Amino acid sequence: MCAVVGVFGVEDAAKVAYFSLFSMQHRGQEASGISTSNRQRHFLIKNRGQVSDIFSEDILANTLQGEMAVGHNRYSTAGEDSILDAQPVFARYDLGDISIVHNGNLTNKNEIRDALIKKGAIFQTYMDTENLIHLIAKSDEDKLEDRIIDAVKKIDGAFSLVIMSRKKMYVIRDKYGFRPLSLATLADGYIVASETCAFDLVGAKFERDIKAGEMVVFEDGKKIRSKILWDTKAEDEFKCIFEHIYFARPDSNIFGANVYQNREKMGVELAKELPVDADIVVPVPDSGVAAALGYSKQSKIPFELGIIRNHYVGRTFIEPSQEIRNLKVKMKLNPIVNLIKGKRVIVIDDSIVRGTTSKRIISMLKDAGAKEIHMRISAPPTTGSCFYGVDTPDANELISSKMSEDEICNYIGADSLSYLSINGLMRSINQQDGYCKACFDGKYLNS
Amino acid sequence: MCAVVGVFGVEDAAKVAYFSLFSMQHRGQEASGISTSNRQRHFLIKNRGQVSDIFSEDILANTLQGEMAVGHNRYSTAGEDSILDAQPVFARYDLGDISIVHNGNLTNKNEIRDALIKKGAIFQTYMDTENLIHLIAKSDEDKLEDRIIDAVKKIDGAFSLVIMSRKKMYVIRDKYGFRPLSLATLADGYIVASETCAFDLVGAKFERDIKAGEMVVFEDGKKIRSKILWDTKAEDEFKCIFEHIYFARPDSNIFGANVYQNREKMGVELAKELPVDADIVVPVPDSGVAAALGYSKQSKIPFELGIIRNHYVGRTFIEPSQEIRNLKVKMKLNPIVNLIKGKRVIVIDDSIVRGTTSKRIISMLKDAGAKEIHMRISAPPTTGSCFYGVDTPDANELISSKMSEDEICNYIGADSLSYLSINGLMRSINQQDGYCKACFDGKYLNS
Amino acid sequence: MCAVVGVFGVEDAAKVAYFSLFSMQHRGQEASGISTSNRQRHFLIKNRGQVSDIFSEDILANTLQGEMAVGHNRYSTAGEDSILDAQPVFARYDLGDISIVHNGNLTNKNEIRDALIKKGAIFQTYMDTENLIHLIAKSDEDKLEDRIIDAVKKIDGAFSLVIMSRKKMYVIRDKYGFRPLSLATLADGYIVASETCAFDLVGAKFERDIKAGEMVVFEDGKKIRSKILWDTKAEDEFKCIFEHIYFARPDSNIFGANVYQNREKMGVELAKELPVDADIVVPVPDSGVAAALGYSKQSKIPFELGIIRNHYVGRTFIEPSQEIRNLKVKMKLNPIVNLIKGKRVIVIDDSIVRGTTSKRIISMLKDAGAKEIHMRISAPPTTGSCFYGVDTPDANELISSKMSEDEICNYIGADSLSYLSINGLMRSINQQDGYCKACFDGKYLNS
Amino acid sequence: MCAVVGVFGVEDAAKVAYFSLFSMQHRGQEASGISTSNRQRHFLIKNRGQVSDIFSEDILANTLQGEMAVGHNRYSTAGEDSILDAQPVFARYDLGDISIVHNGNLTNKNEIRDALIKKGAIFQTYMDTENLIHLIAKSDEDKLEDRIIDAVKKIDGAFSLVIMSRKKMYVIRDKYGFRPLSLATLADGYIVASETCAFDLVGAKFERDIKAGEMVVFEDGKKIRSKILWDTKAEDEFKCIFEHIYFARPDSNIFGANVYQNREKMGVELAKELPVDADIVVPVPDSGVAAALGYSKQSKIPFELGIIRNHYVGRTFIEPSQEIRNLKVKMKLNPIVNLIKGKRVIVIDDSIVRGTTSKRIISMLKDAGAKEIHMRISAPPTTGSCFYGVDTPDANELISSKMSEDEICNYIGADSLSYLSINGLMRSINQQDGYCKACFDGKYLNS
Repeated sequence: MCAVVGVFGVEDAAKVAYFSLFSMQHRGQEASGISTSNRQRHFLIKNRGQVSDIFSEDILANTLQGEMAVGHNRYSTAGEDSILDAQPVFARYDLGDISIVHNGNLTNKNEIRDALIKKGAIFQTYMDTENLIHLIAKSDEDKLEDRIIDAVKKIDGAFSLVIMSRKKMYVIRDKYGFRPLSLATLADGYIVASETCAFDLVGAKFERDIKAGEMVVFEDGKKIRSKILWDTKAEDEFKCIFEHIYFARPDSNIFGANVYQNREKMGVELAKELPVDADIVVPVPDSGVAAALGYSKQSKIPFELGIIRNHYVGRTFIEPSQEIRNLKVKMKLNPIVNLIKGKRVIVIDDSIVRGTTSKRIISMLKDAGAKEIHMRISAPPTTGSCFYGVDTPDANELISSKMSEDEICNYIGADSLSYLSINGLMRSINQQDGYCKACFDGKYLNS
Repeated sequence: MCAVVGVFGVEDAAKVAYFSLFSMQHRGQEASGISTSNRQRHFLIKNRGQVSDIFSEDILANTLQGEMAVGHNRYSTAGEDSILDAQPVFARYDLGDISIVHNGNLTNKNEIRDALIKKGAIFQTYMDTENLIHLIAKSDEDKLEDRIIDAVKKIDGAFSLVIMSRKKMYVIRDKYGFRPLSLATLADGYIVASETCAFDLVGAKFERDIKAGEMVVFEDGKKIRSKILWDTKAEDEFKCIFEHIYFARPDSNIFGANVYQNREKMGVELAKELPVDADIVVPVPDSGVAAALGYSKQSKIPFELGIIRNHYVGRTFIEPSQEIRNLKVKMKLNPIVNLIKGKRVIVIDDSIVRGTTSKRIISMLKDAGAKEIHMRISAPPTTGSCFYGVDTPDANELISSKMSEDEICNYIGADSLSYLSINGLMRSINQQDGYCKACFDGKYLNS
Repeated sequence: MCAVVGVFGVEDAAKVAYFSLFSMQHRGQEASGISTSNRQRHFLIKNRGQVSDIFSEDILANTLQGEMAVGHNRYSTAGEDSILDAQPVFARYDLGDISIVHNGNLTNKNEIRDALIKKGAIFQTYMDTENLIHLIAKSDEDKLEDRIIDAVKKIDGAFSLVIMSRKKMYVIRDKYGFRPLSLATLADGYIVASETCAFDLVGAKFERDIKAGEMVVFEDGKKIRSKILWDTKAEDEFKCIFEHIYFARPDSNIFGANVYQNREKMGVELAKELPVDADIVVPVPDSGVAAALGYSKQSKIPFELGIIRNHYVGRTFIEPSQEIRNLKVKMKLNPIVNLIKGKRVIVIDDSIVRGTTSKRIISMLKDAGAKEIHMRISAPPTTGSCFYGVDTPDANELISSKMSEDEICNYIGADSLSYLSINGLMRSINQQDGYCKACFDGKYLNS
Repeated sequence: MCAVVGVFGVEDAAKVAYFSLFSMQHRGQEASGISTSNRQRHFLIKNRGQVSDIFSEDILANTLQGEMAVGHNRYSTAGEDSILDAQPVFARYDLGDISIVHNGNLTNKNEIRDALIKKGAIFQTYMDTENLIHLIAKSDEDKLEDRIIDAVKKIDGAFSLVIMSRKKMYVIRDKYGFRPLSLATLADGYIVASETCAFDLVGAKFERDIKAGEMVVFEDGKKIRSKILWDTKAEDEFKCIFEHIYFARPDSNIFGANVYQNREKMGVELAKELPVDADIVVPVPDSGVAAALGYSKQSKIPFELGIIRNHYVGRTFIEPSQEIRNLKVKMKLNPIVNLIKGKRVIVIDDSIVRGTTSKRIISMLKDAGAKEIHMRISAPPTTGSCFYGVDTPDANELISSKMSEDEICNYIGADSLSYLSINGLMRSINQQDGYCKACFDGKYLNS
């Protein structure tokens, strides 16, 4: 997960980065940071929390000076939650100041770190992004651009990067194009961001996606230079299918297509593959809404927002002294009994991870009087962990890696359960190749 | 607005009140309070902020003792925002401790206060609820129950009240039944709340609505006693129609009917009365969603969630230094350009108050490439202020009190604009009488 | 305890009140409030916490308008810590707005409240000050001034009061003069405060003390009017001796004499009455410092600050997992071993309440190698509770009400222990009469 | 400034470090951190703020595991206040985890950093301590101990260091012994700290000071090993004289002597060197108290605490709208007029830095009616900046580097002004050699 943004040649770059990160808050709520450059030096503020908690008018207007900025939202990652592990990663080295933001995950980070450490490198955080600064600093090349190329050639895995020096900005997507990264113009400058919804908020004009394997260099004035570091054929790309299924905001365009429309088409395919006679189609909000609309359109079974989501969230969780049945899920979700009662309900969600939440939702709907509950998942069963930047649990915590569909259906208490096939999924995004589906089919890189 | 709750004869009454207020947070976010009784004395905690900010595990478990509780969420009211004006209102007087929570608005509060002040009463807050305690304290009756009856007979306007003494609880709805109030059983005790969604969260079993003009008395054990203070015929009730249009949560049942279903039917009626040829039906989220679904079902024009709502909210608002077009509305709402572009769009919302937000939304949709925009409102034009507890602006700020529909259409920049008729509205809730529609038709009590 | 301030006819009255309360923070840290009047209405802000936490530049400059202000710091009082029990007490009644601040304690509050409640009054707080507003509101007199006189004639006990109406201010000290209250001029207006240190901070010029039994009225312009409500002879006053012993800041002048100098003289008398051969005189900081200086001057035994006080205070107390000996007292106090080791030490403090702290201090000094420890207390044994506004524990928690001096000496582990005699105490303040010493001699009013 | 602590072989090492840092809060309030080792890996928490704000029971008991800990309080340093610049500095490198805390200042940090950067090192903070980790990581030696020795031989300046690996702890004082560092035993383990007051709080038994030029190694069990890295003769040491004059807590023993007693002796010498006929000796609290006591003892002129310090501090500073004379200094200090009025006053302070505060204090005392004011400073004039870890302003901001004593006397408004001579200062600590007095005499290392 995570979100990155880079702003170049725009007045109040810090504020543009701020609003961009605000619009991409769904990609990471644990920590945020912005680093700016006034062409002399960098200014960095990062902290735990959401963007609106960390940045004040004063910080944005006075501390974070300059017309260049990189920013980052960090998703909670297991184990280490040190404040040190927020991005941007900043360092001073022989070519001056450097700030890096990174969305993705390096698969050879341990090998690289071990090799670097053997050569005397020291690591001050637990972030794999720190590798990159070391590789850049230690490269034998003279110019930063060559060093960056040298460095990224050494790393494997998923990376959408924005690297800022004092006067330039380098934007790179790995050769597989795992994570999205798009380019837009804003006033006389540029902005790159993980999702296009950031452009909508700040009023930037979408230009194009950064290509898999491409490096774009922002220099003085409006010049931008593109360099193909790896010439990847479209069908060899490994774009993350989960961006369309779950991560991205529905109003973003990812990998050239709108997320909401793709999700709706997943619902259509789901209805084609797995029809079932029922009275209403009900999404688990907000994740299942678009797919449920598609399912309803295809099946002609009426769509109803039969489960209401409460968007007020408590900062402190109060333990119920008497065990209130399903309290935890009901703090967030509540069924409309009049709609559910006596009905055969098709419930649409985008995934089942551990199964606990699905079990609670179905129990809640049964309490509300549902006659039948048919669970339909708008993606294939998640059987494998992700090594490319998605925070899936270990494989042994994934219910689909341990149980058959029948067993899961039984465990969660549904009357039937089906998942969209991989083929159906690919049809729904109008693609057959170019996507990473390793969490569904186990086909990781080099395997 | 505001939410009230009363809990009687239930272990950990404070926690039940807490969860109830949490589920009714949408009815008021400015202040909250809970008062409990351990049959000896009352314990009161109230403060500004949302419920999850005010109450800790420690306060709920240790400070707020007893098996009886009343609680309140307060909606921001113009002018006075003193912490003193949070509810419950608590007092000690000749019959002991008393705590009152009140949803509604007393129309003769000034006359009563002036009369009371003339007789030597002192007022320590700006809340009209304080009147009630004075009237009860000054009543010539001996018993509390008689005094309460004496007092409520003197007040006019809207009131759904829960009054707690040290050992009893009195629940009253005014003779017109302006504001909702429902009764449920929980374990060996009772709970009353403004909305039934509170019952769902705490696992209480809905029994019935408190009747307009009814007083229900909770005493020792499971006994409950009902007294008809005013015998109001159903068609003479003045139930607030806005609860169905806007206030209540869709999963609540209000005045005997489900809110979501009523809203959907408003959309159906809207489509019948005001058909228009178009490509898609798009709600303004979250307020217009159910009506838009109804409109789509009736008109067969596809429903799309073409505007996405961002539920992350900043605590500090950062001023954009460069004027970003429509920033304020785009912080919350963003259109899906791929869905909107080149389409004739029917936009559904539940009301137009000042017109500013509608204007911004339409401007945003035009920027997204909408070919035509047809605004449809699932309620009649709001032409009058509310004197019964709804925080509508002064009549002179209401756009419908100053402009014709054509002028409004022109002002907000839509291609067409229509409102549901009052008859259509009443059809959608299957009623012709028994409702207050004063904000639409100007028919206030005694006018 | 508690501190009161009144400001009249001064620009930015709220800020003057703020700085005054800041300088009197030692008299109460639990809650603070300021009420101002712009001659039309009152503005009130009060909350739990210290003054610098409650009032912002914005509140002082914009919310609290007008050239009149009353303010209050509240000392923690047992039992009730509701936010409602902060002062000023504000009310609207037949003569308009009224705000009252009160330092002291009414001894007939229960009788008054019961009588008022019987006549239909309602009480919304647990503060005895609320009585006063009721008495004023219910008085048969027409003019506020007469009503106030009527009201204060009905109350017994200790009260230094500042009462603000929309255009006037009334300052009253009870007929015994229990609590201090002084008057100063500031620019073209006036200020009254519990302690003169408030005048020093805001640059006001001390005029005189408000007399016991006097009411001073501030009206338009610079006019001030004095009325003797009770004509008390100096020897019949009942001024609180504890203000000199413990409460007041050393730099304040209380009841016409400087606090620091009086404490030093208590030390002198202590040395005269209770000489002991020793090597050094060491105060318990900060309470015993001035008396220890006096003791040293009289006895010629060198004064040393042998115990250091740590002024950093933690918001959270961390439990030591291994029992660190005397941790709690050592977080605040630490002896200088080089000074203490092998010495015969006279330790000076102003009182022993429960004995626990003295016991810990002596244990700590013994650990530091003191050869002998002679505890000298610069006041008589505290044997009785205070009913006039001092927050002393119940008599049965006072060690001096349960043990003889020998027993206490043994309990706290000192080699000798002596208290200043009542005569010595009175000699040290150059008075024989006019003081309340009830906590030492049990001579309460009417007893 | 700054404080360091190391704990080895003690259960709940994090808590012992916490209490130690709490007792040394006066050495730095800007940031604090603790790193622990459970022999497998390190755990680090650091943040801005005071220790009691940063560490909770949960963090100390659960996050910071192990029986080894290093901790640090950071003094505000000019320019960079990034959260990144808090200590401990932590890194992973070829020998595993390492955490370092450092009190002092490296004089060749720029040369080292430039050299390291040329060799490909990257720096992620602005702290000179980061150099050390690089030097250790890049050393050609195999064993950590040898690498540390190799590294510290390359750095110049002041350093009292505690270096923690996964299983060992290395404690080093630079060859000049600029900053204090003492050793104590605690239960079955050890503790080292900047000041001995830390030992008092946690109940540790003082053993001895770490010697200038010494490295002490803590290994398994109770073994401790001492290695002399530089064999410095006592007279060649460069211990910071300012620790005795100003920094250290009076109850600490620094460089083998008690701070309070040394300060008292400075007062004695001051009275011998610079007698003046006067009525009272008054310290500027808290810094001048001990010296004033010494001055009084020697001169027989009575000591009085004639200026009171207010220990309540506001979090927000409120601007007085009307200019209150000397408000800023009076928020903290207030004279006792009765003591000062008409008196010839000797005011004792430990230093005059920019002169602004002294000027305000004297103005305040004149307002209070002092007849004469004789300012006596218990140290020589500060004419030079410190390069060894004390946060003195630039030389051009030091009043003594720009004005003669007469000019300063005139500027601050005193009737006379004198400073203790360097000889007098050295007499007062019973030493002639072994101290750095560069801020007074300009004799820096190698100059």
